[in-house]
Amino acid sequence: VVHAVLLRQAPTARVVDLTHLIPPHDVRAGALTLWRAAPWLVPGVILGVVDPGVGTERPAVAIEVASAGAMLVGPDNGLLLPAALRLGSVTAAVELSPPPTPPPGATFAGRDIFAPAAGRLAAGAPLLELGRPVDPASLRGEPVPEPKVTAHEVDAEVLWVDRFGNAQLNATPADTGPGPVQLDAGRGPRTVRIVASYGAIAADDIALVVDSYGLLSICADRRSAADLLGLASGTPIRLARTSTDGR
Amino acid sequence: VVHAVLLRQAPTARVVDLTHLIPPHDVRAGALTLWRAAPWLVPGVILGVVDPGVGTERPAVAIEVASAGAMLVGPDNGLLLPAALRLGSVTAAVELSPPPTPPPGATFAGRDIFAPAAGRLAAGAPLLELGRPVDPASLRGEPVPEPKVTAHEVDAEVLWVDRFGNAQLNATPADTGPGPVQLDAGRGPRTVRIVASYGAIAADDIALVVDSYGLLSICADRRSAADLLGLASGTPIRLARTSTDGR
Amino acid sequence: VVHAVLLRQAPTARVVDLTHLIPPHDVRAGALTLWRAAPWLVPGVILGVVDPGVGTERPAVAIEVASAGAMLVGPDNGLLLPAALRLGSVTAAVELSPPPTPPPGATFAGRDIFAPAAGRLAAGAPLLELGRPVDPASLRGEPVPEPKVTAHEVDAEVLWVDRFGNAQLNATPADTGPGPVQLDAGRGPRTVRIVASYGAIAADDIALVVDSYGLLSICADRRSAADLLGLASGTPIRLARTSTDGR
Repeated sequence: VVHAVLLRQAPTARVVDLTHLIPPHDVRAGALTLWRAAPWLVPGVILGVVDPGVGTERPAVAIEVASAGAMLVGPDNGLLLPAALRLGSVTAAVELSPPPTPPPGATFAGRDIFAPAAGRLAAGAPLLELGRPVDPASLRGEPVPEPKVTAHEVDAEVLWVDRFGNAQLNATPADTGPGPVQLDAGRGPRTVRIVASYGAIAADDIALVVDSYGLLSICADRRSAADLLGLASGTPIRLARTSTDGR
Repeated sequence: VVHAVLLRQAPTARVVDLTHLIPPHDVRAGALTLWRAAPWLVPGVILGVVDPGVGTERPAVAIEVASAGAMLVGPDNGLLLPAALRLGSVTAAVELSPPPTPPPGATFAGRDIFAPAAGRLAAGAPLLELGRPVDPASLRGEPVPEPKVTAHEVDAEVLWVDRFGNAQLNATPADTGPGPVQLDAGRGPRTVRIVASYGAIAADDIALVVDSYGLLSICADRRSAADLLGLASGTPIRLARTSTDGR
Repeated sequence: VVHAVLLRQAPTARVVDLTHLIPPHDVRAGALTLWRAAPWLVPGVILGVVDPGVGTERPAVAIEVASAGAMLVGPDNGLLLPAALRLGSVTAAVELSPPPTPPPGATFAGRDIFAPAAGRLAAGAPLLELGRPVDPASLRGEPVPEPKVTAHEVDAEVLWVDRFGNAQLNATPADTGPGPVQLDAGRGPRTVRIVASYGAIAADDIALVVDSYGLLSICADRRSAADLLGLASGTPIRLARTSTDGR
């Protein structure tokens, strides 16, 4: 239905579905999904809805990152800001005006507030036609957490577990060096290699793969590393360089 | 594949996927899905396929509701009529002709019969080119059930349980008054408030939310009300006004 | 994200999602899905990604079947060839060149290698602009297995179990005759009829339905035949003609 509303406002827009698989109410998972995908979605209008506060006082917003040709539309609950900040500086933001005709209920802002606004932006409407300006500094949301990097260790965390059971970390090979590293997910350290592909993981082994976003991802060969090590979004992961005494 | 067939017939049509998640053979769930979404899909051509009788004598039909600029295409098994009747009066209907070239089998009417017909309608073909006229009064299907409203009580039912566990009823605040009401789902009455948003439900509480279709929906705060109360599509729900003695 | 990349390369292309439900790493299931759908997808560009070897030495290829107006893009791991061979003779193939700008990691060829190539082909680029020619005879992949047909029996196998529990075989009514046949899935023979629709299966019975691809499919009436008989992709199925001594 959101697609249909978008196409009424912007009949020639091309609409791409990013995902419908964010767990209910999981704003963090939605924010990370937009943060990962954002570089491939711009220039364009990004509509995001993970909105446990729908119908309450949380504002509905549209955010502009002019340097990327990007507009982001959704609830001001932390969903949009990580992706926006990855794309550049927020150059303007508005709190969306209520729809001119009251909708049948207050609980489907995606259909009644966000899609009409995103469609109008896609059709060329200026941002300031959609609502009253708000200070970009007042927008809610944290950047994606950075790992703590010291001379010997990297304290990272699991950002995301994908459907293959690969656990993406908030750390890159620049943080750890080329490996191997001692990986500790809370059950004691094990030595793992850093490799460039899933196919380079030895049979029955676990390794850190440089994933498609340039991030280290804990992976097993055609099995779920998350199941094997008990990993979930937010699990703390310590990576110790073995070349400088990993234990 | 259905999309590909549609685009062969109507290369410039915009195709929106409403859902692929109707439980197998559940014509009622499919009919309610179209009934809820229909106002946002028109003017346009609506293609619906939930078709346990595919390949049998059940007719394939196309239905016109001229006042809404709507055509509905699918099996004549009750799937289409609730949505059509919500949009207006059925102004014409045809039984679709068999395809000119016999398909490899008789079991994929979506690909072989419905999509070619919907595509031709989307490309501008007149309804009567698609088959022989049938009497709209002969079409199968019941309107969505109405609640029984008396001075003190509303006998409603669960239409639908969504993936969050919210249970949509066939009743509106106009039926119940502003609440609170005594809600009985078969396990004894409990007092519930009527609120405008999920966020207005107290922690650990259950409430009736006026949902995005204007219908009352039994909801819990970030939990599944259906699991908590044992609700499924068709569960009878009695709502008694407390202001006039709910018990 | 793959869609977004495709649309950057080919802004006016129409993109149809065939499926996202191939089990992880199941190249056979992906190849069969393309093989079944291919006749309805051409002329056009077919992009397939089931790619357990991503980032290793397996080549990325684009394949032309000129007689069908078809290009197929994906890993050279057996995913593409069954569909290509169904459409006609492979008239040319190239190994795709690496992307001009190295991507952040090596593990998302769909986004970084296959989608840019498919998009360029959809926008009209000649095949030979995308990489170096390779011998079509060197491409990996087997045709879909044929059943062994003798005077009295057909030794077939389950190609696929769909979400309804119907088990599609690699055999047609031309292999078995009109039935009934003795069907043995490893638990002893039972007599089954060959029918043209799911609705023609008797209550509580199992039958062979001529499915939408013209293939025999083991089906039960609104239940899962796969669960009832213990069927999975690859299960051997013997079909014996009853008219010539079924046992």
